[in-house]
Amino acid sequence: MQAKDLSTSIGASATRITRDIEILAGPDYTTSNEAIRRYAYTDAYKRAVSYFENSLTDLGFEVAYDPVGNFVARNRPAGEPVFGIGSHCDSNRNGGRYDGTLGVVSALELCRINAEENLGLPLQLISWLEEEGSAYGEMLLGSRIAAGRVTDADLAAMRSVDNGVPFMEEAQAAGFEPERWRESKEILNDLLGWIEIHIEQGRVLQDAKIQIGLVTAITGVIHADLVIAGRADHAGATPMTGRVDAGAVAAETILSVERLAREAGDGTVGTVGHVMLEPGLRNVVPGSAIVALDVRSIDDERLTSVFESAVAHARSAAAQRGATVDIIQHQRQPPTPMDADLVDRLESVAKRLGVPTMRMPSGAAHDTMLVAERIPSAMIFVPCKDGVSHSPAEDARPADAAAATMIALETILDQFNIDTTASPQ
Amino acid sequence: MQAKDLSTSIGASATRITRDIEILAGPDYTTSNEAIRRYAYTDAYKRAVSYFENSLTDLGFEVAYDPVGNFVARNRPAGEPVFGIGSHCDSNRNGGRYDGTLGVVSALELCRINAEENLGLPLQLISWLEEEGSAYGEMLLGSRIAAGRVTDADLAAMRSVDNGVPFMEEAQAAGFEPERWRESKEILNDLLGWIEIHIEQGRVLQDAKIQIGLVTAITGVIHADLVIAGRADHAGATPMTGRVDAGAVAAETILSVERLAREAGDGTVGTVGHVMLEPGLRNVVPGSAIVALDVRSIDDERLTSVFESAVAHARSAAAQRGATVDIIQHQRQPPTPMDADLVDRLESVAKRLGVPTMRMPSGAAHDTMLVAERIPSAMIFVPCKDGVSHSPAEDARPADAAAATMIALETILDQFNIDTTASPQ
Repeated sequence: MQAKDLSTSIGASATRITRDIEILAGPDYTTSNEAIRRYAYTDAYKRAVSYFENSLTDLGFEVAYDPVGNFVARNRPAGEPVFGIGSHCDSNRNGGRYDGTLGVVSALELCRINAEENLGLPLQLISWLEEEGSAYGEMLLGSRIAAGRVTDADLAAMRSVDNGVPFMEEAQAAGFEPERWRESKEILNDLLGWIEIHIEQGRVLQDAKIQIGLVTAITGVIHADLVIAGRADHAGATPMTGRVDAGAVAAETILSVERLAREAGDGTVGTVGHVMLEPGLRNVVPGSAIVALDVRSIDDERLTSVFESAVAHARSAAAQRGATVDIIQHQRQPPTPMDADLVDRLESVAKRLGVPTMRMPSGAAHDTMLVAERIPSAMIFVPCKDGVSHSPAEDARPADAAAATMIALETILDQFNIDTTASPQ
Repeated sequence: MQAKDLSTSIGASATRITRDIEILAGPDYTTSNEAIRRYAYTDAYKRAVSYFENSLTDLGFEVAYDPVGNFVARNRPAGEPVFGIGSHCDSNRNGGRYDGTLGVVSALELCRINAEENLGLPLQLISWLEEEGSAYGEMLLGSRIAAGRVTDADLAAMRSVDNGVPFMEEAQAAGFEPERWRESKEILNDLLGWIEIHIEQGRVLQDAKIQIGLVTAITGVIHADLVIAGRADHAGATPMTGRVDAGAVAAETILSVERLAREAGDGTVGTVGHVMLEPGLRNVVPGSAIVALDVRSIDDERLTSVFESAVAHARSAAAQRGATVDIIQHQRQPPTPMDADLVDRLESVAKRLGVPTMRMPSGAAHDTMLVAERIPSAMIFVPCKDGVSHSPAEDARPADAAAATMIALETILDQFNIDTTASPQ
């Protein structure tokens, strides 16, 4: 018997991950020539998924799509238990090559090692549809559908950001059967566990100079629009005292979100990333404003409190000016703890492999939030340069992804009680 | 000799003004089916000016255009002194039927009465090009050119908001010779005085229940963009302490503009009508922001002080967050007092006619600001319903415009020492 140290293959894995990433950053895989831009049902997106489809078919996997287009590849027949790995390969509208895609590429690499080394692991890879929400403005769409966290009415109301065509029509045109979306949940039926590898999208690992982050919890998130109704008036002819300035209420809201999130502490964040003033002309007092709010916390009470306080402050600022505020809540996702046992095991394996790790929350939302409702789940973060993501400037090291892949692989091997040192050479 | 009381014709004038306004609100005179939308060199705009051209030709006026397209009609040969009347008949992009157009229609009505009654007044009507700045984003464009308040470089840099085509090209395509813009100043050469009738665009007259406003001064205005540079970051993965949020700096700026203008008093106003956050996504901390600023005051010191304090506050708010602020100043127009003698005379005539008036500043900018640099000028305001302008909901009473027309006519008659009671019947 000869000991097989899989970790010696990290260099080779990094090379293959680099190649996959390079290919998927090519012009065939984006609809923009300035960024990675691929989202549901576009040709660029179809080609990216096909790349995984072909690669996994070559490894003997059976490939399929669920009724809305989530991609599933497995090396065991349906009904047999498998371990789930994957991420998403859609991008935001002005994205980079790593967000999501690096996780699917790493999962593919794990499948490759499993095949090359005849490890015999039962695996299922998922590439989730539309994590970024670029096509229909709805984040985590594929995994939310698989988790049953949508309604027929939700899906019927979703329309393309580009052209207003309904989601249902575009999904059908792409060859899917979105009216059967309830069956999407079946793709999680056989999973014993789930690991997603992803870039961190922050600067925590870089600042701490640590190669791997083990996610303890994904922050809860509230997405809402505050719709402020004031009165549009001529900017020159309307004295300050006679105004009902929706823009000023929006400004008060932005600053209260910043202050409340700072005060809440413990990683709670609050952001206004978009504001629309109407009519949006320099010389017209804004008659209405839409403030796009994003609040996140790993603590559900803080999450609720920051959101509700921000709304209360907006209403108060509006009342002072004679304006009103309506709330359109798009999403409320409570914090999602990762499976403690699985995180412990990942940590032990990393220690054994000599890879430095730290535990950390994920401030970003991930498909794993939805998977974790049914399946023991974990996420492994790799650093991304300067925390930049959702940008063509996004940068990450394939060697880190290869190390993350190795940690995941060894942890899954442990779970199936497979001892590579005993495997035949 | 029989006394001729012109003021008995106010009812007839109101009817004709109503008809002109109705016609010019028709589908041929707007590029939108939801609002009046006509701006430089569009077919809708050309048709509106042609309507005045034909009407004035019928009254024996000689009609012409200056090198950029300001419309001029006069009933005396060039070189002979005339009294100037008029306004503009372009609209903002989502405009109503009265702003500007009511002033040109009233001026036309004045010319009609002059002809019908054989009053013999030497008159010149001007309809200014592009007061609203809808085509090229530059307000008061025609009158600024006539006042020599542009440069070749300014004009070369102006481009269509719709399609990016240069102003110079579009002006040439419309049959003008914009490279000869310096000659536009000649259209003011023969003016003995200038009166513009316009809707108030505020609620001051309505609230005071007074039919006519006599403008004492047009507020000075500063238009500038504050360009705030922060750093775009993932809204979930970036702790509050690590952010350089350009949107928060924009919000601080909006609120400081509101506060500073309130504190300045004496009719000083400050507005942020438009804010653009980049990338403008809910889940991305804004990396940059553009804040469109509009400050106005009839007091030059207050004007400067509010603007400079707002900029200083923005810089301070930026510095606290590690961001920077650049200023792009588009326009700085000092306050413009109206001609005191002409205002006095208008007031006396109104009193004689029994029309209630009040003196007031104009918070809105008007072409008369530019005319007043060379010519003794005044403006007469008529109420507009609820102060609404720049909107399809804009509403005003033709009878008020007819009264304003009569006040202007009698004032001009006085100036030429023409006694209608002595005129032959």
